[in-house]
Amino acid sequence: MLFGALEAGGTKMVMAIGDENGRILEQRSIPTTTPEETMPQIIEYFKERLTEDGIKALGVGAFGPVDVVKGSPTYGHILNTPKLAWKGYDLAGTLEKALGIPVGLDTDVNGSCLGEMTYGCAKGLDTVVYITIGTGIGAGIAVNGKLLHGMLHPEAGHILIAKNSHDPGRSVCPYHDSCFEGLASGPSIEARWGKKAVELVDNKVVWELESDYIAKGLVNMILTLSPQKIILGGGVMHQEQLFPMIRSKVTTLLNDYYTTKELMDMENYIVPASLKDDQGIMGAVRLAQLAWEEA
Amino acid sequence: MLFGALEAGGTKMVMAIGDENGRILEQRSIPTTTPEETMPQIIEYFKERLTEDGIKALGVGAFGPVDVVKGSPTYGHILNTPKLAWKGYDLAGTLEKALGIPVGLDTDVNGSCLGEMTYGCAKGLDTVVYITIGTGIGAGIAVNGKLLHGMLHPEAGHILIAKNSHDPGRSVCPYHDSCFEGLASGPSIEARWGKKAVELVDNKVVWELESDYIAKGLVNMILTLSPQKIILGGGVMHQEQLFPMIRSKVTTLLNDYYTTKELMDMENYIVPASLKDDQGIMGAVRLAQLAWEEA
Repeated sequence: MLFGALEAGGTKMVMAIGDENGRILEQRSIPTTTPEETMPQIIEYFKERLTEDGIKALGVGAFGPVDVVKGSPTYGHILNTPKLAWKGYDLAGTLEKALGIPVGLDTDVNGSCLGEMTYGCAKGLDTVVYITIGTGIGAGIAVNGKLLHGMLHPEAGHILIAKNSHDPGRSVCPYHDSCFEGLASGPSIEARWGKKAVELVDNKVVWELESDYIAKGLVNMILTLSPQKIILGGGVMHQEQLFPMIRSKVTTLLNDYYTTKELMDMENYIVPASLKDDQGIMGAVRLAQLAWEEA
Repeated sequence: MLFGALEAGGTKMVMAIGDENGRILEQRSIPTTTPEETMPQIIEYFKERLTEDGIKALGVGAFGPVDVVKGSPTYGHILNTPKLAWKGYDLAGTLEKALGIPVGLDTDVNGSCLGEMTYGCAKGLDTVVYITIGTGIGAGIAVNGKLLHGMLHPEAGHILIAKNSHDPGRSVCPYHDSCFEGLASGPSIEARWGKKAVELVDNKVVWELESDYIAKGLVNMILTLSPQKIILGGGVMHQEQLFPMIRSKVTTLLNDYYTTKELMDMENYIVPASLKDDQGIMGAVRLAQLAWEEA
């Protein structure tokens, strides 16, 4: 059985066809410009596969903020985004109308979380956090086996964390003086040190500070959500030297207040994404399957 | 139909009998000393009501950390608490064995959250945060209509928040230099100003600082959990002047990044507990009912 999958990102749209085991059979990317330019290409891609492959449903993991609360009057719409051309755009509705198949929608990071829970390192767990640290910071969260929406969806990349007194830079977030994304995203590294993360690999001070901020963000998510596993993806996390530093700092910051068997096994608790950067598109395949089962 | 309810606190044990509508028919408190001294009194109380009232099950909201994860080998046990006499004590198992009726267990704050969702101001909502700010700070959390446990249970009273540069005091938490409980609990107010909260009612500086810390804690929970409502209980929150200050500071800190209809209606978003400090014991009645339905 085949499904369509769309990872709708701020810079590119990844379209794919996958099967019920999450296997990706083909994949194509196009740049994200305006709905007028981008959407017809997406619709054409899936329309062709509708006839040829008989895809049953489409799953969409979208950049946010996006209304993922079923029953809301603006369900499926992109909300108050700085990408102005997309503000208020009915992403899910447009796709459903054009393709005539069920469309399952969630945030890109919730999609990645679902991908890891269905096909990856979080299989069998029910309370999981997936965090992407790259151009921005975002968190996908599942509790009791279901993705978390609440009144909208998590925006945990913007939780407030204390600025380190040794930090020579400042928060790059236009909204918050001292938030996780503002202090620890890729652009914050570049703004602080004048170089991109990949050019700073051997600079220990950079990764000491970066791991300090990431550990602070993670500690707050651990104490709030009590997740069974935390998965870190995104461009900055390709710096694998960060993992042992983050694990050690999280342990120090928790300071034995909170002891569980999961926290005693840090190597399996705070882990890299396990699906070779396909967690998002594989999660979108799963969103399609769930939409089809529900329809 | 009648149920037993126990609010197992660090300083007192509240025992009650309630009906399926959460109505409390009788209630009694005893001090919490040691299991040897306290437990026989609790068991005797409920054993009498077992015969006289025919209570069907017992619900327990317990101080933590406590193992509330069903299937865990230490399910029902009090864990690594500073109340050493209770460390490792099998609270749920002892009660179940002595009474021979189903026992439903959760944390005290999850119990309060459930009480508000079943009988109080959060009726009909599915993603809710209940925070008690008193001797300590604790959070009960429900997502998609179910209480959050994950690997153990939330300990969101200890999330790290930035210390205010004008704060003349310091964190009173023995574990964390700069956490919510350490900076904003009742004991932190007393340590900082040399007086109890109730003696400081007219001192504006006290409540400016206190509401600043509470707002920072709430912003992180809003961005992580996206709750439909936040309910504030506990002794410190009897200072009602805090509510408008907290609401205004939360709005300022979020800085229009995250806009939802709930956040535009702050008076109904951040609210006092609605059950006259009975949210905990009423929640325990509901825990009993759920345990009975499951058995």
